[in-house]
Amino acid sequence: MTEFELIERYFSRRVTDRQVLQGIGDDAAVLEIPADRRLVAAVDTIVEGVHFPTNTAPADIGYRALAVNLSDIAAMGAQPKWITLALSLPQSDTAWLESFATGLFELANRYDVALIGGDTVRGALVISVQILGLVETDGWLTRSNAKPGDIVFVSGILGEAAAGLAVIQREINTSSDAATYLKQRFLRPEPRIELGRKLRMHASAVLDVSDGLLADLGQLCRASGCGAHIDIEALPASTAMRKLFSTQEGEQFALAGGDDYELLFTVSPDSILKTEALIAQGVRCTPIGRLTEGSEVQCCRGGVPMQITKRGYVHFA
Amino acid sequence: MTEFELIERYFSRRVTDRQVLQGIGDDAAVLEIPADRRLVAAVDTIVEGVHFPTNTAPADIGYRALAVNLSDIAAMGAQPKWITLALSLPQSDTAWLESFATGLFELANRYDVALIGGDTVRGALVISVQILGLVETDGWLTRSNAKPGDIVFVSGILGEAAAGLAVIQREINTSSDAATYLKQRFLRPEPRIELGRKLRMHASAVLDVSDGLLADLGQLCRASGCGAHIDIEALPASTAMRKLFSTQEGEQFALAGGDDYELLFTVSPDSILKTEALIAQGVRCTPIGRLTEGSEVQCCRGGVPMQITKRGYVHFA
Repeated sequence: MTEFELIERYFSRRVTDRQVLQGIGDDAAVLEIPADRRLVAAVDTIVEGVHFPTNTAPADIGYRALAVNLSDIAAMGAQPKWITLALSLPQSDTAWLESFATGLFELANRYDVALIGGDTVRGALVISVQILGLVETDGWLTRSNAKPGDIVFVSGILGEAAAGLAVIQREINTSSDAATYLKQRFLRPEPRIELGRKLRMHASAVLDVSDGLLADLGQLCRASGCGAHIDIEALPASTAMRKLFSTQEGEQFALAGGDDYELLFTVSPDSILKTEALIAQGVRCTPIGRLTEGSEVQCCRGGVPMQITKRGYVHFA
Repeated sequence: MTEFELIERYFSRRVTDRQVLQGIGDDAAVLEIPADRRLVAAVDTIVEGVHFPTNTAPADIGYRALAVNLSDIAAMGAQPKWITLALSLPQSDTAWLESFATGLFELANRYDVALIGGDTVRGALVISVQILGLVETDGWLTRSNAKPGDIVFVSGILGEAAAGLAVIQREINTSSDAATYLKQRFLRPEPRIELGRKLRMHASAVLDVSDGLLADLGQLCRASGCGAHIDIEALPASTAMRKLFSTQEGEQFALAGGDDYELLFTVSPDSILKTEALIAQGVRCTPIGRLTEGSEVQCCRGGVPMQITKRGYVHFA
């Protein structure tokens, strides 16, 4: 199959978006950006054997490749709009491609995101999605605007994705409800687009938790010039995790596991009530600590600082 | 080195572009798109051992990763502006990264293109660049607007890049001037941005020659609903190629070699004089044939159709 036929068959969808003036099939796409919006652009890549296990179903890979990018857009408070796909794969396997496209478009359709271009090459299985979104001109979320005293929140339940990966890798009780739920949390993270949109103009800083809570909180603190003090007992507990893992391992997943794609955000004390009211209807968000002067990220149990050894996934460590 | 330090050290450059409201270092970049411009977006990926030989110098890889993307922007008649980089590499090799960044930024600076985001992951050597450009609202170049009777032009000299690759792979006379020149043509293609800008509003169809003349002309014909008749004797001759390769092999490179990143464009007979005057000062452009009714791409010698066996590089053939 030529690249043209391959794209035609699996990746061309009728795009009804009027802002797409030229879609797939030319040297580039052409887009109309409304005058009252800023363009938001990000790229995220997933590699077989690094970001997902080798035997992952292609539909889950397709879903995940988009989900991690939607999560970046969520962390900016923006609305996702368009993606391009750079797909390097070892051979032209039609069943694989069909399944991959199904997973990708399932999520793309849910968020009304159009695929506007791409590139398919032969190589190791590496998938890059470049995402474009739009945000109002009066503001977007960054990780650099937080201040000491701001309250630290996290969406969802941290650690379940890492626990899901452990279930897959160690083949733990794989048919139980808890295992199925945790695997799904790893394979199909839910991008927090709606929450990000609500937090725009309200949170002082936001990022998505991809490398683990402590690592990503460290990034937020570094960008904002703060330290942080978080309370491990405040972290939302996972029933499924408790069923399959020890408390200690569960805490390790929650603090350093990564792959959560939840939003970590800070809110100034003045804005707490308003923000809590605003986000009350959506995904559960939990206050887990507070930003401090200085630069240290401390995790405490009963007010006593814990010794932390593994601060999350470090690329090329 | 963490991903953060790696990006900080090799890929952060001061961005003076006022349209970049948020650059590298957050979850996404934020850009201001002028109301009188459309956004042009493309992605192109290069893989070690597929798009460049395994022993290619990292500076050449960095250059090439951007050049192939600039070429897509050139083919739209647009002005390149910003890129994101998805870099999958086997290990954190500082000398490699430094050299790669040097090649990338050498070309980026020449075209005033800013790196606004990226993602560095561990994996096989696969480099995706996503490029964003701007074009006037009154029109851009596509491959689908040509008509029978239009004259087919090509910029530069086709086949030299393929000849350069052959020089590298077969280790032909590598120290001769001709070999050095041809290798450079493969390793460092010159994106035809300036030509693309001039052709905007004048050419009826444009694309860049990446897979080989016959393959890409076939794409243009398919998109425009035409056939084509080209004259092999009209193709610009390469002195360097003649020195190292037989006439027959040279023709094969020119027709099907790929990697040229020259512009293939069509001009209606009414616009020929005006277009030729417009492009006279830049890179040499040569008329090589004419579009026809029907759908066949014919290559003729002395008016007699040639038998063509290899129509250019086919992905996943």
